[in-house]
Amino acid sequence: MADKQKVVLAFSGGLDTSFCVKYLTEDRGMDVYSVLVDTGGFSADELAAIEARAYSLGVVSHAVVSKTDDYYQECLKFLVFGNVLKNNTYPLCVSAERIFQAIAAAEYAREIGASAIAHGSTGAGNDQVRFDMAFRIIIPEAEIITPIRDLRLSRDAEIEYLKSKGVNQEWHKAAYSINKGLWGTSVGGKETLTSNGYLPESAWPTPVTKSGEEVITLTFTHGELKGIKSDAYGSETFANPVGAIQRLTELASPYGVGRDIHVGDTIIGIKGRVGFEAPAPLIIIKAHHTLEKHVLTKHQLTWKEQLGNFYGTMLHEGQFMDPVMRNIETFLADTQGHVTGEVHVQLAPYRFTVLGIESGYDLMSSTFGSYGEMNNAWTGDDVRGFSKVASNQVMIYEKVKAGN
Amino acid sequence: MADKQKVVLAFSGGLDTSFCVKYLTEDRGMDVYSVLVDTGGFSADELAAIEARAYSLGVVSHAVVSKTDDYYQECLKFLVFGNVLKNNTYPLCVSAERIFQAIAAAEYAREIGASAIAHGSTGAGNDQVRFDMAFRIIIPEAEIITPIRDLRLSRDAEIEYLKSKGVNQEWHKAAYSINKGLWGTSVGGKETLTSNGYLPESAWPTPVTKSGEEVITLTFTHGELKGIKSDAYGSETFANPVGAIQRLTELASPYGVGRDIHVGDTIIGIKGRVGFEAPAPLIIIKAHHTLEKHVLTKHQLTWKEQLGNFYGTMLHEGQFMDPVMRNIETFLADTQGHVTGEVHVQLAPYRFTVLGIESGYDLMSSTFGSYGEMNNAWTGDDVRGFSKVASNQVMIYEKVKAGN
Amino acid sequence: MADKQKVVLAFSGGLDTSFCVKYLTEDRGMDVYSVLVDTGGFSADELAAIEARAYSLGVVSHAVVSKTDDYYQECLKFLVFGNVLKNNTYPLCVSAERIFQAIAAAEYAREIGASAIAHGSTGAGNDQVRFDMAFRIIIPEAEIITPIRDLRLSRDAEIEYLKSKGVNQEWHKAAYSINKGLWGTSVGGKETLTSNGYLPESAWPTPVTKSGEEVITLTFTHGELKGIKSDAYGSETFANPVGAIQRLTELASPYGVGRDIHVGDTIIGIKGRVGFEAPAPLIIIKAHHTLEKHVLTKHQLTWKEQLGNFYGTMLHEGQFMDPVMRNIETFLADTQGHVTGEVHVQLAPYRFTVLGIESGYDLMSSTFGSYGEMNNAWTGDDVRGFSKVASNQVMIYEKVKAGN
Amino acid sequence: MADKQKVVLAFSGGLDTSFCVKYLTEDRGMDVYSVLVDTGGFSADELAAIEARAYSLGVVSHAVVSKTDDYYQECLKFLVFGNVLKNNTYPLCVSAERIFQAIAAAEYAREIGASAIAHGSTGAGNDQVRFDMAFRIIIPEAEIITPIRDLRLSRDAEIEYLKSKGVNQEWHKAAYSINKGLWGTSVGGKETLTSNGYLPESAWPTPVTKSGEEVITLTFTHGELKGIKSDAYGSETFANPVGAIQRLTELASPYGVGRDIHVGDTIIGIKGRVGFEAPAPLIIIKAHHTLEKHVLTKHQLTWKEQLGNFYGTMLHEGQFMDPVMRNIETFLADTQGHVTGEVHVQLAPYRFTVLGIESGYDLMSSTFGSYGEMNNAWTGDDVRGFSKVASNQVMIYEKVKAGN
Repeated sequence: MADKQKVVLAFSGGLDTSFCVKYLTEDRGMDVYSVLVDTGGFSADELAAIEARAYSLGVVSHAVVSKTDDYYQECLKFLVFGNVLKNNTYPLCVSAERIFQAIAAAEYAREIGASAIAHGSTGAGNDQVRFDMAFRIIIPEAEIITPIRDLRLSRDAEIEYLKSKGVNQEWHKAAYSINKGLWGTSVGGKETLTSNGYLPESAWPTPVTKSGEEVITLTFTHGELKGIKSDAYGSETFANPVGAIQRLTELASPYGVGRDIHVGDTIIGIKGRVGFEAPAPLIIIKAHHTLEKHVLTKHQLTWKEQLGNFYGTMLHEGQFMDPVMRNIETFLADTQGHVTGEVHVQLAPYRFTVLGIESGYDLMSSTFGSYGEMNNAWTGDDVRGFSKVASNQVMIYEKVKAGN
Repeated sequence: MADKQKVVLAFSGGLDTSFCVKYLTEDRGMDVYSVLVDTGGFSADELAAIEARAYSLGVVSHAVVSKTDDYYQECLKFLVFGNVLKNNTYPLCVSAERIFQAIAAAEYAREIGASAIAHGSTGAGNDQVRFDMAFRIIIPEAEIITPIRDLRLSRDAEIEYLKSKGVNQEWHKAAYSINKGLWGTSVGGKETLTSNGYLPESAWPTPVTKSGEEVITLTFTHGELKGIKSDAYGSETFANPVGAIQRLTELASPYGVGRDIHVGDTIIGIKGRVGFEAPAPLIIIKAHHTLEKHVLTKHQLTWKEQLGNFYGTMLHEGQFMDPVMRNIETFLADTQGHVTGEVHVQLAPYRFTVLGIESGYDLMSSTFGSYGEMNNAWTGDDVRGFSKVASNQVMIYEKVKAGN
Repeated sequence: MADKQKVVLAFSGGLDTSFCVKYLTEDRGMDVYSVLVDTGGFSADELAAIEARAYSLGVVSHAVVSKTDDYYQECLKFLVFGNVLKNNTYPLCVSAERIFQAIAAAEYAREIGASAIAHGSTGAGNDQVRFDMAFRIIIPEAEIITPIRDLRLSRDAEIEYLKSKGVNQEWHKAAYSINKGLWGTSVGGKETLTSNGYLPESAWPTPVTKSGEEVITLTFTHGELKGIKSDAYGSETFANPVGAIQRLTELASPYGVGRDIHVGDTIIGIKGRVGFEAPAPLIIIKAHHTLEKHVLTKHQLTWKEQLGNFYGTMLHEGQFMDPVMRNIETFLADTQGHVTGEVHVQLAPYRFTVLGIESGYDLMSSTFGSYGEMNNAWTGDDVRGFSKVASNQVMIYEKVKAGN
Repeated sequence: MADKQKVVLAFSGGLDTSFCVKYLTEDRGMDVYSVLVDTGGFSADELAAIEARAYSLGVVSHAVVSKTDDYYQECLKFLVFGNVLKNNTYPLCVSAERIFQAIAAAEYAREIGASAIAHGSTGAGNDQVRFDMAFRIIIPEAEIITPIRDLRLSRDAEIEYLKSKGVNQEWHKAAYSINKGLWGTSVGGKETLTSNGYLPESAWPTPVTKSGEEVITLTFTHGELKGIKSDAYGSETFANPVGAIQRLTELASPYGVGRDIHVGDTIIGIKGRVGFEAPAPLIIIKAHHTLEKHVLTKHQLTWKEQLGNFYGTMLHEGQFMDPVMRNIETFLADTQGHVTGEVHVQLAPYRFTVLGIESGYDLMSSTFGSYGEMNNAWTGDDVRGFSKVASNQVMIYEKVKAGN
């Protein structure tokens, strides 16, 4: 008897990917190897529950690929170095996670020699493109199967199908679609489907339970968050910034800090709107950027901004694998040599403030002349000369123009 | 007897420019024509007091050049169109005002046929360069005289000199240096001279007297703020956005909205730090930008950001007169045709939130397919084809790489 | 009896589009309205021959849409203003022409109320995307039919099919595929399908018949070529730059000037290589650019280059209809106010040299100080001050670095 | 008796720096340590003659700092990686050399503990700024002395002064000012001081002695020129690309290849024009760029161009020491991993043509589908889907626009 075709399925345990398991197994006669790529968004209990469901649906094997550290080292780190906020707003929490999961799933498929690879995305969003692209680039010979997109079944029809296969579980339809990850939690639905609605207090994942103000200090070493001082936890150092991100999320979430709604361009050309609660990235990026304003030169800041913005857009659009992304990462990492110091941040309900920084690389050190105060490194005559030379071209331009 | 040399002095009524009047008149034997360029930062009473002081110091003539509308039309308007916040933070309130005042003073000098032109800036900041450059470009044949920069007198020495000339006024040294203008108020001193200090509540110009939350609606027409709806004032329309900026300042300042500290690169190469309270620009720009995210294409947004950032940097550095600035203004204005609609904003103590927008030009209109929901304008197969073609180059790149 | 469906076909008279006429008429039962968009690449005889063929194949109607002037005014003009050479090499002669033809065909279809629109591109190149996109954006409700791409017939099969329908014409397969247009002639085939082959002398459209050297003078008015002085034609002025482009092509082609091979990124992600003979654009752009280097400021040159490059890439990729393109055209046009003057160019076999320029807007006028010679507008001390201030930041950076 | 002040003088042996030796020694009473930084522009005989002259003029010590290899490794290499031609024309031969010499002179001064450092530039060009900046950044505590700029002596007055000190040498004034270096030779004077004159044949350093055509093959390894095949020299490999640059110069100069006139913006704001003969850089950069077009992705090419242009401008303007330059070098080097292969170039009198390339990293390999020919990696339907999705946003934009 001929071997069944081996298909890898990126599995989350939700209705869509559960449908995929049954459909691929029974209607397509394949051996399903489900895989969950863990980038820090799941608890151990959640992982166990998903694995149990996978096997109960009939997968041949279920694998959990732990990628949290790689996710930070190969992606989030550069979002910090580049101060990447899409449209000055969105930390790309879902974009980054999804492309990273898609790559890991494709690598897993290549590793186990699968001849097909499947994802459960619909035909209406960004994720389908991210999965499609990662699959095709990493394992181009494999067939890409997308049952949900292709069959265009309604939610009810999927449930009906699963029932007909003996899966009688309750499938709750949540009011909002939530995606929780290391770099933030997205919230979509209802108000975000309009242009003018704002999410109600109840829709946000973390209730606001803290009041008053609290000052914390973040320690950056070569651009990476390696320490947090706070009243709540004392002074902690983190060999791995993943821990620092998690701790900062714990500290700041109960203030309702880091919430906003992003409206942006999807890969498929329509506008999309999504809420997010992402206190750690918003605080880390503003703190890191402030530190950089003190220790980097003007031209370094300018180019970091340009390259950081482009990096974010490419990541968002599933182009993470283009080699230019590696080149940009090299650039960004090379700029972080002096980005070492402490940043003081005040947390308060629904807002935070970067208070100031301290760094041995601070170019504002008053040793070299303070803004607004005279010094001995240059004279008024020097500046007069500077102004004269700096205005030469436009002075000439105006004279020439007047002569015509 | 030979005519005295005619010198125009940019006069603010403070200690430095008062010193300049006496010095130019008595030590240099010139006829001083003082000029104050009003860009919306002075009340009628303040203007009258400054004029009185000028004459009491002995100027031959004092002129007030009213430039508030021009300031908006020729400069602030483009800062809105370009969503210009230096380093994503600072609305360039002082930078824009100073270069505009310098230009107007130089034009006045040319108009009255002055052979010299003076400013009271020290040799330690950005303003000297802005004055120098505007003077040299607009009236290159005039001598530029900068007594404060050249003589490097201490504050006490200046007071002493004035006393010796019979000016016995009290000169208060404020704890903070404040510059109030239409586009915001800057606050410098003490904490801002360090890298880690934050301004205390008492240092901010407007005390926080409002609590609770309030929703207002801003109406933009082709990118310009033309209407405000609020509980406090009802629904107002403004033929001239200058009025709208002033009203928004009144509404939002008592919430303590729009405060921050900017650290940036001065024109003379050192880092400078300055606090600012600028609720109107911060709210207008975030509201305007959100509206644009709905009505402009991805590529329009990308290029507006690039050109807007550059425009802000050039303005900051006194390069406002470079003809490329006119080209960029033309570009920015050309992008605003569809930037018409309403933006809802919630004000609360120390923060504001853009809630959403309504516009007839909204590209997110659900008629054309909603993010996350299927539609009839394209199929899953279309996106599959898109992903395939969009991944071609990197797919080939990886194959070629693997073959080496 | 029901009306037949009305389809507009972009018709060139070649084998592929001839096949389309028969296929659409007979196999699909449609009324074919052929259209040829003339952008300056056809003689009157050629146009007549194509029309005759269309009717002989059975079209209901054949239209020639004359777009040469529009093509210049709405597209080529901006390629000159922006000095657009893709990858510093290719004047985008085919890219520009094709998207312009696609747009005109779609507008014609909308005008006559067609419910379908067809093109004869294969599935292997850029043109299919340009046609697809223009058709979908301008007449989105129309069905897009692409018989050659869909049926994937061989050349012989197409000829066989036509014979079976009574079309017995000889179809010569040329050694090279040639596309002749106002902005240049492309040459593809054989060597260009490899990475290392170069086109032989015989493959180039215009034989080299001139020898020796000839100096011509080009007159630009606000960036547009309005006059040519040459030994061959004397001094000519052109109200319409289209005539100037044609005359310059006549003058320079016999020198073999303007030939090169471009290798670049196709829209579909693969690399493509194409030869071109485009003397007019190469000469005009280098002459125009040299004139600009004399009359524009440094910052104008920098931004023109950035925006011009992007404009060319978007045009190449079929994104000509994005509104950002109109914004960029506005910018480019706004920069041309001073781009008026004469440029002297030497022609010689296989090469040309820009000798120099004359312009009333020349910023190099020695009145304002010559490079390398002292002048009175500024002193050595001024430059000393300039250098000092301009080195402040890096001087401080090095000191801070040394202190760590 | 007090020690004399130790001054380092960047010495070239010409009239200006000869004057400086005497002036510093006799009028200023200093010990002059002359230094010549050799970046490959001098023969052994020339170096010996300059040394002899230095001592005859009375320097305490004369040092030759050999920096040719460093010059390539730390500067020229990146000009190749970045395909840097200022304004698409000028290889920055003088700019690069001068800043590099200024840095080396400053480092030498720091090393020997000099308290002053001098250069012989006039107040009219770019070089003064490059020297000033390098000196101030590297040895900020040293006094910078610039006798020629400060004294503004005429040529005759300098000769007179030298005669009065017993230096009776003949000082020829050449018709053109020539600067010969590893990366090209500049030619200034007479015609280049106008906007419309072109240099006569006799002004170019290398007479044209070769005729006919010759094909050579350049071998690049990770972006560096490591081999040349030619009829004249056979097949040569170069461990050090400096040798390859020198060999290519020998091969191509007698064809008159690589001549042009550059007009550009000087650091001091005026326009300057200079002729140059730089066959090696022009051939290497066009060959290297062509190779890159085959092996890099579209986005890599785009960003390399942006960063390369900026790198060139900063280098030109004396900002080589800004740390952003190191970051950009890191980026550029990181892009060169696949830039390995052979490039065939045809030389002929006054022109060269890049014929084609061969590389194991060539993305144009026909294995993956040829431009203009169908293949199996994607279908016509895939491209149809791509076009549809790629036109979504503008399609929606047009519909929304039409609805208003």
